[in-house]
Amino acid sequence: MTALNELTASEAGQRIADGDVSCEELVRACLDRIEERDADVAAWVVVDPEHVLEQARMLDASSVSGPMHGLPIGFKDIIDTSDLPTRYGSPIYEGFVPEADSACVALARAAGAVIFGKTVTTEFAGRHPGPTAHPLKPEHTPGGSSSGSAAAVADFHVPLAMGTQTAGSMIRPAAYCGVYALKPTFGLFSMAGVHDLAETFDTLGIMARSIEDLALFRSVLMAIPTRPFAVVDSPPRVGFCRTPMWNEADQATHDHLEAAATRLGKAGARVVDLNLPSDFNDLLPVCWRIVVFEMARSLAHEKHTRADGISNKARQMIADGEATSLTTYLNDMRNIERLRILIHELMDDIDIILTPAAVGEPHVGHADTGPVTFNFLWHILNLPAMNIPAFTGPQGLPIGAQVVARRYEDESLLRHAAWVDQHIRG
Amino acid sequence: MTALNELTASEAGQRIADGDVSCEELVRACLDRIEERDADVAAWVVVDPEHVLEQARMLDASSVSGPMHGLPIGFKDIIDTSDLPTRYGSPIYEGFVPEADSACVALARAAGAVIFGKTVTTEFAGRHPGPTAHPLKPEHTPGGSSSGSAAAVADFHVPLAMGTQTAGSMIRPAAYCGVYALKPTFGLFSMAGVHDLAETFDTLGIMARSIEDLALFRSVLMAIPTRPFAVVDSPPRVGFCRTPMWNEADQATHDHLEAAATRLGKAGARVVDLNLPSDFNDLLPVCWRIVVFEMARSLAHEKHTRADGISNKARQMIADGEATSLTTYLNDMRNIERLRILIHELMDDIDIILTPAAVGEPHVGHADTGPVTFNFLWHILNLPAMNIPAFTGPQGLPIGAQVVARRYEDESLLRHAAWVDQHIRG
Repeated sequence: MTALNELTASEAGQRIADGDVSCEELVRACLDRIEERDADVAAWVVVDPEHVLEQARMLDASSVSGPMHGLPIGFKDIIDTSDLPTRYGSPIYEGFVPEADSACVALARAAGAVIFGKTVTTEFAGRHPGPTAHPLKPEHTPGGSSSGSAAAVADFHVPLAMGTQTAGSMIRPAAYCGVYALKPTFGLFSMAGVHDLAETFDTLGIMARSIEDLALFRSVLMAIPTRPFAVVDSPPRVGFCRTPMWNEADQATHDHLEAAATRLGKAGARVVDLNLPSDFNDLLPVCWRIVVFEMARSLAHEKHTRADGISNKARQMIADGEATSLTTYLNDMRNIERLRILIHELMDDIDIILTPAAVGEPHVGHADTGPVTFNFLWHILNLPAMNIPAFTGPQGLPIGAQVVARRYEDESLLRHAAWVDQHIRG
Repeated sequence: MTALNELTASEAGQRIADGDVSCEELVRACLDRIEERDADVAAWVVVDPEHVLEQARMLDASSVSGPMHGLPIGFKDIIDTSDLPTRYGSPIYEGFVPEADSACVALARAAGAVIFGKTVTTEFAGRHPGPTAHPLKPEHTPGGSSSGSAAAVADFHVPLAMGTQTAGSMIRPAAYCGVYALKPTFGLFSMAGVHDLAETFDTLGIMARSIEDLALFRSVLMAIPTRPFAVVDSPPRVGFCRTPMWNEADQATHDHLEAAATRLGKAGARVVDLNLPSDFNDLLPVCWRIVVFEMARSLAHEKHTRADGISNKARQMIADGEATSLTTYLNDMRNIERLRILIHELMDDIDIILTPAAVGEPHVGHADTGPVTFNFLWHILNLPAMNIPAFTGPQGLPIGAQVVARRYEDESLLRHAAWVDQHIRG
């Protein structure tokens, strides 16, 4: 029998609804797991066990039952919570407790979720890493910037967590830790109450151990009715996109992705090679220029009042942003506007793109959380993307498959991804 | 000799730089004006005279001098300030003082500006009005939601103020009160630390009594070097756009705008009629559906924890947003994505669009702050827009001319608008 903390959110929710398990029993199992494991994993900035138990007992005593009744969720610590400190990964905000919940926390809370704690983020969700280790091999990075969320879900601390992505901060840690992730179409999850980094790209997302759980939580965050999740009826039209960065992926990633494309075709999908035109080459500098330009503005308060509390990495990015001319920035913005139109034309007869989620297994070392190589492109195009934890590499660590859909087709992405998930493994 | 509080920001800055006037003298003149007038105008939620004088004295004593040294700025009260309460136009936040400055406040402060106080906003920058009266005729609306910012600048309380626009909340109050306003291309001024309403549209903007002042403050908010402002060398190519809503404007607006188009042509501009295709008809419901859909999500915290503190108007909008289906919302989003491409094609050989800023002079009554009729269209297309306070209507109240440019052409807009400003009046 599966330990309670290892249940998916949907499974746990069903057990609670059936009266088999109380909210308190579920959160106790999660708290015990964290107690057992977090000295090694360091996924959490703060968990307040008494407050977690108090929420669970109130839910057990309540006559109302929302769609996430009793389900534990970790929130990346750049997301404001009115009842827990919010540090934004920065010593500048040590001990700070926001006045209000962010919109995503409020929506989850109103749906009956247990706000379990705050997960480790890199500083302001940028490049300066936090203390989190990979749950399987602690000398490896868990990825970032949503490091704690990915590790906490992968290591069975909680079934669900929220993170954010500005370039690769959802899909990469999900791939490294081996969990499912949904990074929705830009703008669909309200960023109200989330610390800004580069507003043109900042996007909230969800991590879970099943696609069904992503779909459930997405409904709550979109404040739409929850419905039973169903895989698509017929095999998708898949565009296998190696991207101009293909050679930066390692052999295991090449082999797994090529085999996956073949397997999906054999299972009935219409798989075509999606070769991007040269317009999509060399966009990584475009992504970073926009990020650093905007960081240098959005972090103005911290820069001007608490420069001593900013890491060298962030300080360098801010300096790079100050050195980027407005003309360059505006040309970059015009360029990606054009590419957002072009990619939709290229995806005209494709349901989902299949593409790597990362360059390979997570590397050894915690000085950085890994490259955004296979994440930034889809991200700057505002496309919804998911990680499917499909494979294991030669070091025994996860290798993900990323699937991507057109803007606003998030629901279709989830349903097609579920089909891919059923057929992608060997 | 012009009273100090009646100087533009650029004039006042020059006088301070020349040593003719101290920062303290300037802010005292502004404080005196507010003391004299604000019982009638009610532009301000909070001004702390001691804190204003303290900032001015520190600037007078300082050896460094930023590009806005000593210049008084009012900030709409949905913009976070670390040293002044921030109420968001809602009793829910009575007495709340944020932890950090918003990015725009931090950038202004670092440039040497005096953070003068917080100006009246409608509730959460939505539709429920604040107490501000029109400075010329108090029984008339000043417009909104940036009511206090427009009134404070028009009534010579401060030379500069910041507001926000989600549908028409910058251009309309600027037109009603008779001040210049710049609402930049969507996304260019960082929204970090500004309360969200409908994130797809929320945009910070500037009000001033000269275009030069808008250009100065824009440079500071973009964190780019300030340069002397110059009008364009040659007359612009103007697209006169009556819009599908033309018949909703009154006779005075029709007459002034038609005469303006003729006058600009006589002054050397190439003026063409820009007739929008039917794709641009009937978009007001699209705008409102997106606004209310997003409001129902972004205000989740307030809705779920402090529903008693929400006005009936906002409550109704939230209910409308909850009743709007996700399918409708996504179709609306796809539609405006398409129109944002189309409008650029239509503006291919046009430097700026000339179009009404409002339906007419501000109406009598304070139950609402006026219609968004001539604002929402350019706004949902993400285009930068300005109000030019060009005309006076039959009731002796201002009538504005709105000019609009392509996305990312904000600097060009300012320089062309200055040419229009020189030639638009009779």
